[in-house]
Amino acid sequence: MSNEKTSKPKARLPRGFRDRTAGEIAAERAVLDKIRAVYESYGFEPLETPAFEYTDALGKFLPDVDRPNEGVFSLQDDDKQWMSLRYDLTAPLARYVAENFQNLPKPFRRYQVGPVWRNEKPGPGRFREFTQFDADTVGSNSPSADAELLMMACDALEAVGLNGQYIVKINSRKTLDGILEATKVSPTLRGTVMRAIDKLDRLGSEGVRLLLGEGRKDESGDFTKGAGLSKNQVDGILSFITSPDDGSKAIYGTSEAYGKGVAEVLAIRDIVESAGYGNERIQVDKTIIRGLDYYTGPVFEAQLTFPVTNEAGETIQFGSVVGGGRYDDLVARFTGQQVPATGISIGVSRLLSALKGRNEAALSPLVVVLALDDPQSSFKMASELRAAGVRCEAYVGTKKFGDQLKYADKRSAAIAVMEGSDERAKSEVTLKDLALGAELSKSVESRADWVKDRSAQISVQRSELVSKVRDMLARAK
Amino acid sequence: MSNEKTSKPKARLPRGFRDRTAGEIAAERAVLDKIRAVYESYGFEPLETPAFEYTDALGKFLPDVDRPNEGVFSLQDDDKQWMSLRYDLTAPLARYVAENFQNLPKPFRRYQVGPVWRNEKPGPGRFREFTQFDADTVGSNSPSADAELLMMACDALEAVGLNGQYIVKINSRKTLDGILEATKVSPTLRGTVMRAIDKLDRLGSEGVRLLLGEGRKDESGDFTKGAGLSKNQVDGILSFITSPDDGSKAIYGTSEAYGKGVAEVLAIRDIVESAGYGNERIQVDKTIIRGLDYYTGPVFEAQLTFPVTNEAGETIQFGSVVGGGRYDDLVARFTGQQVPATGISIGVSRLLSALKGRNEAALSPLVVVLALDDPQSSFKMASELRAAGVRCEAYVGTKKFGDQLKYADKRSAAIAVMEGSDERAKSEVTLKDLALGAELSKSVESRADWVKDRSAQISVQRSELVSKVRDMLARAK
Repeated sequence: MSNEKTSKPKARLPRGFRDRTAGEIAAERAVLDKIRAVYESYGFEPLETPAFEYTDALGKFLPDVDRPNEGVFSLQDDDKQWMSLRYDLTAPLARYVAENFQNLPKPFRRYQVGPVWRNEKPGPGRFREFTQFDADTVGSNSPSADAELLMMACDALEAVGLNGQYIVKINSRKTLDGILEATKVSPTLRGTVMRAIDKLDRLGSEGVRLLLGEGRKDESGDFTKGAGLSKNQVDGILSFITSPDDGSKAIYGTSEAYGKGVAEVLAIRDIVESAGYGNERIQVDKTIIRGLDYYTGPVFEAQLTFPVTNEAGETIQFGSVVGGGRYDDLVARFTGQQVPATGISIGVSRLLSALKGRNEAALSPLVVVLALDDPQSSFKMASELRAAGVRCEAYVGTKKFGDQLKYADKRSAAIAVMEGSDERAKSEVTLKDLALGAELSKSVESRADWVKDRSAQISVQRSELVSKVRDMLARAK
Repeated sequence: MSNEKTSKPKARLPRGFRDRTAGEIAAERAVLDKIRAVYESYGFEPLETPAFEYTDALGKFLPDVDRPNEGVFSLQDDDKQWMSLRYDLTAPLARYVAENFQNLPKPFRRYQVGPVWRNEKPGPGRFREFTQFDADTVGSNSPSADAELLMMACDALEAVGLNGQYIVKINSRKTLDGILEATKVSPTLRGTVMRAIDKLDRLGSEGVRLLLGEGRKDESGDFTKGAGLSKNQVDGILSFITSPDDGSKAIYGTSEAYGKGVAEVLAIRDIVESAGYGNERIQVDKTIIRGLDYYTGPVFEAQLTFPVTNEAGETIQFGSVVGGGRYDDLVARFTGQQVPATGISIGVSRLLSALKGRNEAALSPLVVVLALDDPQSSFKMASELRAAGVRCEAYVGTKKFGDQLKYADKRSAAIAVMEGSDERAKSEVTLKDLALGAELSKSVESRADWVKDRSAQISVQRSELVSKVRDMLARAK
């Protein structure tokens, strides 16, 4: 094995992926449970589709079409068919509905939660795997269907503790056609213009101006080709998306597409308003356009209204935590038959990073039974404590006492339980309150030292183990 | 769009993948919650690693090394590095521990649950994506660590309702070396012999005989090359794995490897036995060998002791629902430094298919508010019912009354709520008990018919909506 050293792989995470530990996982679980409870109370039922879809079934709807592999992770199966990891939960839903249409209730309302993968350039806070929580209604063209999803999104954001600190914005993708018409921009540039406008909140109007014109170089030096519009056209588009609502109506009032867009947005707003979701929660915003190609009408977005800070404590441009819209043509890609559909998607990973510190779901206090000379006895004590509802582990590592105390410390255990042979002879055990004696593991290296250090430590009858541990935990609260 | 028809993709699941609907998802969630509660009570904390690992970090440990891509889904990243979807949760753990060793408590004990992917030949009940629930202890070479995992696996199987209908089997991978030594088989054939023995429960001793000798053709006609052993060697191995325990001890008692294997297995059995997990739950079985390459010592497996039937009602060969073992060299692949480790993995997807019908977690009854002429009013009623804890949806589809009733029927709703303009004038609503009137949707196509059909239907004051719905649900129980 002389070449062992050179052939050793380096232990490292793939670029743009991350590990998550107990605190984050518990926080996500708590948030998912709350959203799930809201969605189920509305009668939405869960669906789970696999990680892979055939590449042709997923389609190409991602905003960043210039990226390598067009934003998805793809590979070729043994039988030469191309498969891709899902980049969202909407395209798989369209495949599912097309495949099972006859047997589904109409409308079909489902929620799905799970990871999605994007083959994008990773960056700070920008991962290639993240969690989405979607709800969709397929088979209804009624504005009630859109309205219900928006109200449900509000209820979900309330349930996770946002307490009104968000705003849901609605618009119609049809206004985009109104803009193109009024500024005489060729429909072939629709996608490029759409993606440029979608970046308004991230890049500001100067960034959008570059993307509509010559193109834009990002912080890393990568260049995105622009739409190549004339100055007049760029000015026209920017004046539309940055002017107050009244003005724009005057400018685009003559466009039929714009009129249709306005009508469908107002129909939704009327329903949510009369259901008690007023302008402070759901409002019309003509700059909302969304980046995905498949939206055909109303589009939605929810933004947080409090400043979000990064790990360095700096306030950051946070963007949206919910996105969605109507995609009436997605099922027709398979069947040729139009099936109206609308959906919302909560970006759970993004939401969690904004909520950091708000939803800390603490595990119950931990008791560690230290192993001295009798593992059977340790296991028995741990098992008795667990049966009484106490989270408890028996130490299974080395016999070195210092290691055991360091372990209990590192695990932030509340209590250490110890039973040496002398205690056992007297049918006693020793309980140490580690919160009180938090400093002990730094100085104590031997059992003798530890036993000497009587602070926060009691000897109790073995038969009273459970009740005394409970007393100690209750006092620590 | 003249070529639209030819370019339409077919809506179909990728080979070997599947969709899961509400019942299955609820059953899985219930099982995962129960296992999680047991593992957390033992002090194991969750970890989540990403779907992808670098291919070199995952290593090649899968049993079916002859498969294309060696059993994993792999693709090349932009920067030319190969990444693979995890095929289990153990190899990612080894990478995580090697990467974060300094900061972890020792021993490090974590659980992880999630999908894994195998690029294998799909078959009936054999999917390429499935859920595993793992628990591992890294950094302890004590048999207490193995014993604890086995007891915890028993507790988890009890928690999901198996009520003693399982048996955990333990053996040591070292006995394999004893067999090779005694039958004078070259150590280079170790892997092939191991994988052949591992298939004993699935293929029977005749199948194993073929795999140890010339090779074997499976039902589909695919040929697996054999180990090419002599008849004497094959007989020797088979007599070992099929003879009662007493005999084998006599035969292999002189092998040092076999002796070591027996010693470590007995040490574990002694601990679990004195902790009250007797031979009826955890027992030594020398035919247990496991297929993964990375095990170095004790190996574990849990089998169900009741007959499992498939969808056609036929009893099937079910195999194991838990697997695991000690893998002391996996972290050393990265660091060069041996870190003892042991783990168990519950095959959740397999377990669920065996438990089918046992853990049906029913959703609470559903109320559907039919939409007649006033969506605002429907939403308001649905919202009041939800606020009172009733799972309720407002219908958002077409205005056709027959469609609405079919919908309520397909959703298996318990109650339909209806408020037409005449009811509204009287401040009344109509409640229909759909369980009682289950047949209604087949014959009723108009509102007039439905209103005429007075069975199981009452008019109540609008102000009493919530209380009357609750009464009706309570009666239906």
